Amino acid sequence: MQEIRVELAKTLKDKPVDESKLGFGQVFTDYMFVMEYTAGQGWHDPVIKPYGPISISPAAMCLHYGQEVFEGMKAYRADDGRVLLFRPEENFKRLNRSNKRMCIPPIDEELALCSLKKLVDLDRDWIPKAKDSSLYIRPFIIATEGKLGVKSSDSYLFIILLSPSGPYYASGLDPVKIYVESSYVRAVRGGTGEAKTGGNYASALIAQEEAHEQDYAQVLWLDGVERKYIEEVGAMNIFFVIDGEVVTPALNGSILPGITRKSTIELLQSWGQKVSERRISIQEIADAYDAGKLTECFGTGTAAVISPVGELKWQDKVMPIGGGQIGAISQKLYDTLTGIQWGRLDGPAGWSVDIDA
Amino acid sequence: MQEIRVELAKTLKDKPVDESKLGFGQVFTDYMFVMEYTAGQGWHDPVIKPYGPISISPAAMCLHYGQEVFEGMKAYRADDGRVLLFRPEENFKRLNRSNKRMCIPPIDEELALCSLKKLVDLDRDWIPKAKDSSLYIRPFIIATEGKLGVKSSDSYLFIILLSPSGPYYASGLDPVKIYVESSYVRAVRGGTGEAKTGGNYASALIAQEEAHEQDYAQVLWLDGVERKYIEEVGAMNIFFVIDGEVVTPALNGSILPGITRKSTIELLQSWGQKVSERRISIQEIADAYDAGKLTECFGTGTAAVISPVGELKWQDKVMPIGGGQIGAISQKLYDTLTGIQWGRLDGPAGWSVDIDA
Repeated sequence: MQEIRVELAKTLKDKPVDESKLGFGQVFTDYMFVMEYTAGQGWHDPVIKPYGPISISPAAMCLHYGQEVFEGMKAYRADDGRVLLFRPEENFKRLNRSNKRMCIPPIDEELALCSLKKLVDLDRDWIPKAKDSSLYIRPFIIATEGKLGVKSSDSYLFIILLSPSGPYYASGLDPVKIYVESSYVRAVRGGTGEAKTGGNYASALIAQEEAHEQDYAQVLWLDGVERKYIEEVGAMNIFFVIDGEVVTPALNGSILPGITRKSTIELLQSWGQKVSERRISIQEIADAYDAGKLTECFGTGTAAVISPVGELKWQDKVMPIGGGQIGAISQKLYDTLTGIQWGRLDGPAGWSVDIDA
Repeated sequence: MQEIRVELAKTLKDKPVDESKLGFGQVFTDYMFVMEYTAGQGWHDPVIKPYGPISISPAAMCLHYGQEVFEGMKAYRADDGRVLLFRPEENFKRLNRSNKRMCIPPIDEELALCSLKKLVDLDRDWIPKAKDSSLYIRPFIIATEGKLGVKSSDSYLFIILLSPSGPYYASGLDPVKIYVESSYVRAVRGGTGEAKTGGNYASALIAQEEAHEQDYAQVLWLDGVERKYIEEVGAMNIFFVIDGEVVTPALNGSILPGITRKSTIELLQSWGQKVSERRISIQEIADAYDAGKLTECFGTGTAAVISPVGELKWQDKVMPIGGGQIGAISQKLYDTLTGIQWGRLDGPAGWSVDIDA
């Protein structure tokens, strides 16, 4: 494995005094990890260096043709002082799947994890102590070749940023209101929906802004072909509890394969809870609601963990769910996942990774 | 209108000696135009300054969420020494339409054109003299706010780059081979297909690479819903001549509204040539081919102007068109468009814009 060079900062920044005001992804630590890719040479010169602006060509392909991928994960401070990551190998595996779709050369997943541990270790004093706060980790890759012909770049930067963050939703576990999007489409089979790439997020901004204007937190995306089947929320995957069964849309190529989604399914199965991944139409959800069988709805994601949905709106139909309370299954999932993440509970083997181990 | 400040370079770069080796979008001039946007303040401080790397936050939203748009246009050197732009107002109008879809604040189109003229004037010695060579112009806007929450950025950069360039296809007017893409999808109604934004290009790279491996220049995209109807080529719009009628896919929300496309339709109409914008299935093209009625096929785009298509491949069906020669309509369009662009012919009022006028 390549040696990871460390370039120490001359001075360290002041850490946030009031952790309750961290917000999400707004404050960055003292260091970042950077590795370059050059055609012919491959990925080279991994370095941890002081966090700061990057200098790139104004013709860099990421700025014009969106050749970029990212990941999101967290480091958690356990009560006993350990610093834990949650299934980080899954994130680097997914990063490489995104790379493949976006024609970006694969990274060495072992080197990436090793670099991440070293980076978090150096910045460990930045990991917040407040409840539900953690160190958000943002690995990303951007195309840097400064040429305007449309093609895959010959050079890239792989960077990891760290950001001490509070809960993704300021309202925490309060149920959020979600709006079923009927005009815009996030992704379609054959497109990039299952890759974690910039374009998917850029295309979703307009729908998100329109949802906010109507006082909804996010939109629920339907499939791009028939506009009938539920896909995801954009920042989260979505689950429903119908008549005692947990259901979530099956991965179909246009849905992001969430790691919290996967963990949720695995936990439910380990509890003997019936859980199905299948195609779900929005009409089925409306029918279940009308029949009084839709008892819970929640989103899953690294940023929000488990986010109860308290209201779904589809066209003119408003469907309040759970009476403003978090449901029993959602609560148990939240307690279990966060328990494992913060090291209060033992999870399945390999889920919790101690950066010092 | 805001004053455009000019920051002169201390030294100028050497200009390319051999214009036949320029390629496309690989060499940049001495200057670039830069203007910043800050929420609350709007677009401010337009400046022409020496071309060079830009410094941005590694958390800049364009690097993570693809909030970015661009345009492509050219400056042409006429035989009499005039420097001409081709319908530049159309590009800035389209940039603002892309901005709207991507939640980017609109630019002042008049200021943009004025800035562009001033920039081209300062770099006018960079405009190549070789036949079919021109100064490629790349206006683009990137989201620069350094925060990781998914939302529209609060700050942007609007930049214009200039690049002396040869023909987009090295083979020039030689007919290109195009492959009908059956697996990947570029865009879908409700998505961002009609915006000139990075994600559309990033998602297309993988299909383009697979086409190159099969010795095809580009792919022809079908619609994302039924995968039956022809959309565009990605770098070009597409036209067919069937039984004496020119047809091109109607703009449907997922096709880029090309300015060369629009100009082509307007020219054909002015010649009394029957031309239709409508839905065209790939089956219709195959049927016309089988019936011997498909006499020409060509792409239109700023970079390639008119690019004859000499072969279409759809699944196992290979359809050679025009016997390796450019067709009469394609040739007349090419001669007329390039004639107007280089100032050898008079075009409709307003098509040709002298930067000194």
